[in-house]
Amino acid sequence: MANKQVISGKEVAKHNTRESCWIIVHGKVYDVTDFLDDHPGGSKIILKYAGKDATEEYDPIHPPDAITTHLPVEKQLGLLEPDTAEKVEVIITDTEKARLERVSRRPPLSEVLNLHDFEAVAKLVMPEKAWAYYSSAADDEITNRENHAAYHRVWFRPRVMIDVTTVDWSTTVLGHRTSMPIYITATALGKLGHPDGELNFTRGAAKHNIIQMIPTLASCSFDELVDAAQPGQVQFLQLYVNKDRDMTKRIVQHAEKRGIKALFITVDAPQLGRREKDMRQKFDAEDPSEVKKTGSDGVDRSQGAARAISSFIDPGLQWSDIPWFKGITNMPLILKGVQRWEDALKAYDLGLAGVVLSNHGGRQLDFARSGIEVLVEVVNQLGKRRGLKFPNEKFQLFVDGGVRRATDVIKAVALGATAVGIGRPFLYAHSAYGQEGVEHALQVLRDEFEMNMRLIGAPTIKDIVPDMVDASHLGAHIVAVPEDRLYGANYDSMQSASLREIKAKL
Amino acid sequence: MANKQVISGKEVAKHNTRESCWIIVHGKVYDVTDFLDDHPGGSKIILKYAGKDATEEYDPIHPPDAITTHLPVEKQLGLLEPDTAEKVEVIITDTEKARLERVSRRPPLSEVLNLHDFEAVAKLVMPEKAWAYYSSAADDEITNRENHAAYHRVWFRPRVMIDVTTVDWSTTVLGHRTSMPIYITATALGKLGHPDGELNFTRGAAKHNIIQMIPTLASCSFDELVDAAQPGQVQFLQLYVNKDRDMTKRIVQHAEKRGIKALFITVDAPQLGRREKDMRQKFDAEDPSEVKKTGSDGVDRSQGAARAISSFIDPGLQWSDIPWFKGITNMPLILKGVQRWEDALKAYDLGLAGVVLSNHGGRQLDFARSGIEVLVEVVNQLGKRRGLKFPNEKFQLFVDGGVRRATDVIKAVALGATAVGIGRPFLYAHSAYGQEGVEHALQVLRDEFEMNMRLIGAPTIKDIVPDMVDASHLGAHIVAVPEDRLYGANYDSMQSASLREIKAKL
Amino acid sequence: MANKQVISGKEVAKHNTRESCWIIVHGKVYDVTDFLDDHPGGSKIILKYAGKDATEEYDPIHPPDAITTHLPVEKQLGLLEPDTAEKVEVIITDTEKARLERVSRRPPLSEVLNLHDFEAVAKLVMPEKAWAYYSSAADDEITNRENHAAYHRVWFRPRVMIDVTTVDWSTTVLGHRTSMPIYITATALGKLGHPDGELNFTRGAAKHNIIQMIPTLASCSFDELVDAAQPGQVQFLQLYVNKDRDMTKRIVQHAEKRGIKALFITVDAPQLGRREKDMRQKFDAEDPSEVKKTGSDGVDRSQGAARAISSFIDPGLQWSDIPWFKGITNMPLILKGVQRWEDALKAYDLGLAGVVLSNHGGRQLDFARSGIEVLVEVVNQLGKRRGLKFPNEKFQLFVDGGVRRATDVIKAVALGATAVGIGRPFLYAHSAYGQEGVEHALQVLRDEFEMNMRLIGAPTIKDIVPDMVDASHLGAHIVAVPEDRLYGANYDSMQSASLREIKAKL
Amino acid sequence: MANKQVISGKEVAKHNTRESCWIIVHGKVYDVTDFLDDHPGGSKIILKYAGKDATEEYDPIHPPDAITTHLPVEKQLGLLEPDTAEKVEVIITDTEKARLERVSRRPPLSEVLNLHDFEAVAKLVMPEKAWAYYSSAADDEITNRENHAAYHRVWFRPRVMIDVTTVDWSTTVLGHRTSMPIYITATALGKLGHPDGELNFTRGAAKHNIIQMIPTLASCSFDELVDAAQPGQVQFLQLYVNKDRDMTKRIVQHAEKRGIKALFITVDAPQLGRREKDMRQKFDAEDPSEVKKTGSDGVDRSQGAARAISSFIDPGLQWSDIPWFKGITNMPLILKGVQRWEDALKAYDLGLAGVVLSNHGGRQLDFARSGIEVLVEVVNQLGKRRGLKFPNEKFQLFVDGGVRRATDVIKAVALGATAVGIGRPFLYAHSAYGQEGVEHALQVLRDEFEMNMRLIGAPTIKDIVPDMVDASHLGAHIVAVPEDRLYGANYDSMQSASLREIKAKL
Repeated sequence: MANKQVISGKEVAKHNTRESCWIIVHGKVYDVTDFLDDHPGGSKIILKYAGKDATEEYDPIHPPDAITTHLPVEKQLGLLEPDTAEKVEVIITDTEKARLERVSRRPPLSEVLNLHDFEAVAKLVMPEKAWAYYSSAADDEITNRENHAAYHRVWFRPRVMIDVTTVDWSTTVLGHRTSMPIYITATALGKLGHPDGELNFTRGAAKHNIIQMIPTLASCSFDELVDAAQPGQVQFLQLYVNKDRDMTKRIVQHAEKRGIKALFITVDAPQLGRREKDMRQKFDAEDPSEVKKTGSDGVDRSQGAARAISSFIDPGLQWSDIPWFKGITNMPLILKGVQRWEDALKAYDLGLAGVVLSNHGGRQLDFARSGIEVLVEVVNQLGKRRGLKFPNEKFQLFVDGGVRRATDVIKAVALGATAVGIGRPFLYAHSAYGQEGVEHALQVLRDEFEMNMRLIGAPTIKDIVPDMVDASHLGAHIVAVPEDRLYGANYDSMQSASLREIKAKL
Repeated sequence: MANKQVISGKEVAKHNTRESCWIIVHGKVYDVTDFLDDHPGGSKIILKYAGKDATEEYDPIHPPDAITTHLPVEKQLGLLEPDTAEKVEVIITDTEKARLERVSRRPPLSEVLNLHDFEAVAKLVMPEKAWAYYSSAADDEITNRENHAAYHRVWFRPRVMIDVTTVDWSTTVLGHRTSMPIYITATALGKLGHPDGELNFTRGAAKHNIIQMIPTLASCSFDELVDAAQPGQVQFLQLYVNKDRDMTKRIVQHAEKRGIKALFITVDAPQLGRREKDMRQKFDAEDPSEVKKTGSDGVDRSQGAARAISSFIDPGLQWSDIPWFKGITNMPLILKGVQRWEDALKAYDLGLAGVVLSNHGGRQLDFARSGIEVLVEVVNQLGKRRGLKFPNEKFQLFVDGGVRRATDVIKAVALGATAVGIGRPFLYAHSAYGQEGVEHALQVLRDEFEMNMRLIGAPTIKDIVPDMVDASHLGAHIVAVPEDRLYGANYDSMQSASLREIKAKL
Repeated sequence: MANKQVISGKEVAKHNTRESCWIIVHGKVYDVTDFLDDHPGGSKIILKYAGKDATEEYDPIHPPDAITTHLPVEKQLGLLEPDTAEKVEVIITDTEKARLERVSRRPPLSEVLNLHDFEAVAKLVMPEKAWAYYSSAADDEITNRENHAAYHRVWFRPRVMIDVTTVDWSTTVLGHRTSMPIYITATALGKLGHPDGELNFTRGAAKHNIIQMIPTLASCSFDELVDAAQPGQVQFLQLYVNKDRDMTKRIVQHAEKRGIKALFITVDAPQLGRREKDMRQKFDAEDPSEVKKTGSDGVDRSQGAARAISSFIDPGLQWSDIPWFKGITNMPLILKGVQRWEDALKAYDLGLAGVVLSNHGGRQLDFARSGIEVLVEVVNQLGKRRGLKFPNEKFQLFVDGGVRRATDVIKAVALGATAVGIGRPFLYAHSAYGQEGVEHALQVLRDEFEMNMRLIGAPTIKDIVPDMVDASHLGAHIVAVPEDRLYGANYDSMQSASLREIKAKL
Repeated sequence: MANKQVISGKEVAKHNTRESCWIIVHGKVYDVTDFLDDHPGGSKIILKYAGKDATEEYDPIHPPDAITTHLPVEKQLGLLEPDTAEKVEVIITDTEKARLERVSRRPPLSEVLNLHDFEAVAKLVMPEKAWAYYSSAADDEITNRENHAAYHRVWFRPRVMIDVTTVDWSTTVLGHRTSMPIYITATALGKLGHPDGELNFTRGAAKHNIIQMIPTLASCSFDELVDAAQPGQVQFLQLYVNKDRDMTKRIVQHAEKRGIKALFITVDAPQLGRREKDMRQKFDAEDPSEVKKTGSDGVDRSQGAARAISSFIDPGLQWSDIPWFKGITNMPLILKGVQRWEDALKAYDLGLAGVVLSNHGGRQLDFARSGIEVLVEVVNQLGKRRGLKFPNEKFQLFVDGGVRRATDVIKAVALGATAVGIGRPFLYAHSAYGQEGVEHALQVLRDEFEMNMRLIGAPTIKDIVPDMVDASHLGAHIVAVPEDRLYGANYDSMQSASLREIKAKL
């Protein structure tokens, strides 16, 4: 902030109207009067904090530098005189009181036996808004659930009488060592679930020697997350390509300079999805007659924060852009969101380092197939057409979406994946228990790996081979038997539009 | 009306018996004494209005000209002296009061996020009779639900890294431009759901540049619907072929003269279906002991209004009739209700313009297959036997039934359809919200098309190609995973016959 | 009865002990003292009526001549002096009162729209014991339900543009005309559901020109049922082969003399099945500590009346017995209960007239396949191995089990069946409404046939050909979509053993 | 016990601290002070009994000789002076009182119609801890339920017209006669369910001429179980191979000397499974803050008794160990837990006597396939590669897991199994009814065999041939229709972690 002037809360408080609107964020004072109509989230929410400290509302849904990026320097007025800001009276609703009471009743981590448990607890103790944002997916949420269901159509053919006294499930991803064949994949808005945001993942990953993929839409800033890493800790970067390619170049080159080891370019989100459960939650939470539908820029704000703040993403990104990326960075390039073998082949032929077979956690195109199903197709076709064998050091395949058990990961590895990205389970772990939750989630996976490596008869990751699984009915998209009870109990069924409640008469 | 005599309500009121029964409809007086036993809906309902104004009861289930078509000129007695008719005391039942209360609580349209939502709201706010008529289907309603379920067995294989900055989902149908690859298909008795009837569709279609197919059994008259069209607005006509071919000829030639662009001849309804949910509703609504089962013409009136008023349909319609149709009109001829490739091939060989692969919304033969399943078979066989490729300008394939999402339409287009007919969703939209509902429904589809064209990587309709879908398990008729929650919640399960209620004692 | 002596009720009443036990049945007096231990149903139930009139209890589960067949002539003591029998005080339980109240609330037949409805009503109004006996099936009742479910895996490929002005669904079965391709198959103990027993079927069949198959275990006597037939009415006989072949010969030759047109020899019941729902019902109804498990003959009476009274059936019946049957009768011989093509082929090669592909309504071997599934296999193999085409005049195929709709029958005919046996639906129809119910059930089928012959485009039974159905997934035994709601609602789920109720304290 | 000194309860009672901790078990006094930290179940549970008689708690989860095996001779202090031990006040909780009340309401055995019924009753009357231990399985319990579900995908093709006057379902297993093609397989900790433990199985097996497989982890001692056998009664031994091979050698040679007829070496349990339902039950039952997670040996005691007491099992067991086993015993060797044809082939080539195709009742690797599915694969491949036909005298195939009906067994025999192991159903039978329950369970199976041998048309076991079943969809892992109601009702769905209860305020 150029202007180091100190301003009193009393002065700020005078600017509490649409005509002159100042707010305080992280101890700094900003004049947002001219920005009101351009705010992706609408002006109403800003005006609620006109003349006051908006930090608490701002934090979970903006990276720290969002405000300085968008406001011209002259509107960054100065520093707040400490402890002088007008208080916003916080009204704790009955709903919130009940939630806090539930927080106090969380089971101890020792009772959290698997990743499903985190989701079960988080669903009860996290803010509804965060739950709706994290758990929602596209349209009828078919792909979202298929991502997990697909794993239930793959069965094991374990070997017995193998010496499994010691088992080792560590491996390398793009040349970097990891204690398990998984990584924490990029997910947005971590602070919705826990005030420390994505830092919980950085710290948990460090402890367990796991790679973290930093998201473009983190609610912590990129540098915060890199700074928090331990010496030698490996981080990747997920990239939404900006319409402004210079901006993209700056981001990429900054990341490389800061030691990021690989760049995962998201290709399945030319436009961010409509997630109706998320949209429905907003209607419940607000008085719909007051929700401003579109701002002066024509962005439909009813479609959720993520959609609004993602309007920078370039829907024009195309194959011919690849050479440009190769020209601006030496990091290995991986396409995240490939969904057919033809595109995996193109990526290989263009000399990329790999692809993530992913449908964005079911949040984009409904009825896209699961990554694990596409994996089988990609391994077959690239084997047939280019003679490749997987897992492959030169062109690595990743999958994400729907993973809840170490057995799911082992299935993917047997079918040719180098590693598997896990997202929502860590969001639920940190929403329910913060950093400790993330660490316990990794511990749970570790225990499951040890057990299941032994039980399939594989002393090391290399011993997990294709004939250890039967995936012959994976493509059938039918109800697997038996029923998946824990997953099913956690699934929060979509709801239709409903009649307005009648207000009780006095 | 030949007779322009003015008659007072007092005079009309004297003719209130089976021996002399006059009624008033739309300000005109009719002597229906001799017609009582020929009324397809039975004499009882007419006698209720003997000597009184029957317009309100008449309107939703008859086209305006039904009465003049059936009554000889001499029974059309004259004009009613305004405001002199005897009032029929309307008793608003508790059920109806509760319904009206629910109408007042409809969610605002901004909360209606998808076509399922219209159904969820309509189910609660529309009259039970209308719901039963619209939602019912044949026998166990297996085909009715299969129509939607079949789409859940088709999965996407989207392309990434395609420039989708601008996407265009407009197309042409039989040479006519449409803003989306859909049309509003013909559905009967629109006024049951909303007093403006099919006019809501005409107006909504105009606003969104969509083609409307006018039904033979509209509750608005054909000319009203044509008159309501905007200049240049395209309308098609759905035709039930009359046993009296001269009548059919008059209808067809009148339609052509009025500018109708294509004739869709219904071939799946030689007899209109038994829809048990509809029949069951009538039992609930009336005292069964008083329901007159058959009139003098032997028509079973317990089987619903549609069946009764459809007795004119010719079950003798056959392939050899096609030349006659070609002789009376130059409109393109399309057969609506084809259900096997053999019949599509015949239609092609006879030089027709296309076929609608349809099972009448599941309202006719139960266990008929879905249009989308038949589409795959037709495209394969006509490709193999006649070298045709689809979509095809010369012989166009349409499907209808079960569509709820733009992704459903995109699947059909990928598999070779030119466009997709949508019926019930618009009935629910107008039943719940009138014309505004229809417009919002089209807007919802428009938003879904924009999103999903981007997400499958298709800048235009021509870019939607067969390899974008995996329909390999479409023919298996098995439970798709995951569960279809919104559709399932809306489905109103069939009920068996039930014991009579015990009347509470005083 | 040889002895025409008249005995007073007072005299009979003296013989009310195990030492001397007389009972009255149909106005005649019997000394059953020596028979007590041989009674298949146990002595306890007889002793309850010692010295009294047992007719009401006797009737539903014995053919009228059972007592004279089993008792030596000298024990048939004489005629009762009218109106002198000691009354057995009939205590109407609360359960029975509630049932009778439900009987009074049955919906009128005009509201019974399909065969499912009869089951829904019967389940509520018939005695629990009868429901348990009729509805129960073997083991986990898998085959019982599969019988119906299998039809849901066959879909139609209807023809359009066929002249269906008149449709005719009559056909011939073994050379005899029938108004529909169905027959009323043999089911035991008709009087459990209605006091007129199988006479209801004889009379209903006459009215609708349908063939009745008379069961060996009818609760009416064979001659009663033949006497009740109209002139020209066709009846078949179902035969359980007795260990005593002379007895079998007498039955067969008597049947032929009385005009029976075909003999259906049951081959799937060397031992009658354990039907646990039926067994469970008995435990509920009686004090288990008093249930006598086995009589002096070692028959386990806990396994239900049917099992007990079927102990005469010969488990030694085998292929080499066929010539003997041919030697004793000229009636066409059909094997009822064939379940694999190999056995159908054997029957053909032995010159029999046909086979019923049946699993005894799921009441014998659980996990036997449905008749409709076996039909496809039989038609294929007998076509391949003997060049037969079906339907075939010389060797006719029948199926039974699970039929609820005319469309089910049409599917079977398309796949090669001559006709289809229907059993339980008529039991439910007569249990709920007597003869009128049976007639209405046949009327419902008639209406369904008319409609569906038109809708598949088949003017006559001969026009129903194999390419009108798609049975390609019939053998998969998987959940068909959509769900079968009416059938499912009627299915009375099996129950496990349960804890004893605690008797309320006074 | 070397030391025969007699010690008074009063003296023992003084040693009731962690510093000096004596306990009484079966009338003998032990000093366990130094053993406290090495106790696999933790020190807390021992300290509860410090100075007192611990027999009742000790018995269900330890073989009688466990304490003498683990304690050095000098700590085995002497005999207790009779009737002088300090009483541990037993508090009967409300939960326990309610359970005991339910025990008193068990239905009589005559109402227990099938093996499902035992489970239904046991679930209600056995201690929760025992239920959790017996019924739990690995991870999501998918394999556990699949084991049973798989049988529902095999259907019968029964023969008719076969003389089944007498049917004989006895057979030989490894040369030993058995009255049915089943055996009681090894299951651990029998005393959890009933105080007589595995003795109930020994006695029940004797009565019905069935072979019992004695488990390594029996709660009765090996010798007790052998001593309880009738002359000529055949017993097998299930072996967990100890890291200490001398110990294993001693066990094996002792078994052979005692007359054990075959050795079943468990190969699917290098590490015993995490069974979350069991683990969850422990959390419910105890105050989690006091559960000691790991002892000084690093064994995680939260994972259940079985896991703890199984730490001796050697995860290094491998194919090259086979010759050693052959060298120490002449008993036939069978591998228990083979799950793919490649391993069955290896076992054959190494000259073993057979394999059990088993996944340890679903308690080890989730998503392992069912034994019945693997059976089909093994029969095919060993037929193709070694020309073997099954059932085979020289190399016998067994399956276990999921069996509930004689029809399940018949299916396995038709597909090539020599016999089938049954485990949990006998645990439930003895938990609910003791030895009588086991006998009744065997009687139920006997009745089912008699019936079903007749109904499939197989007079003897040799007549059960492959063409009697259709297993063509066994590998599809899809929902079989119709639903398996009794099994489903018994299945105790897994639960997620749940919030702590709020203690009611006073």
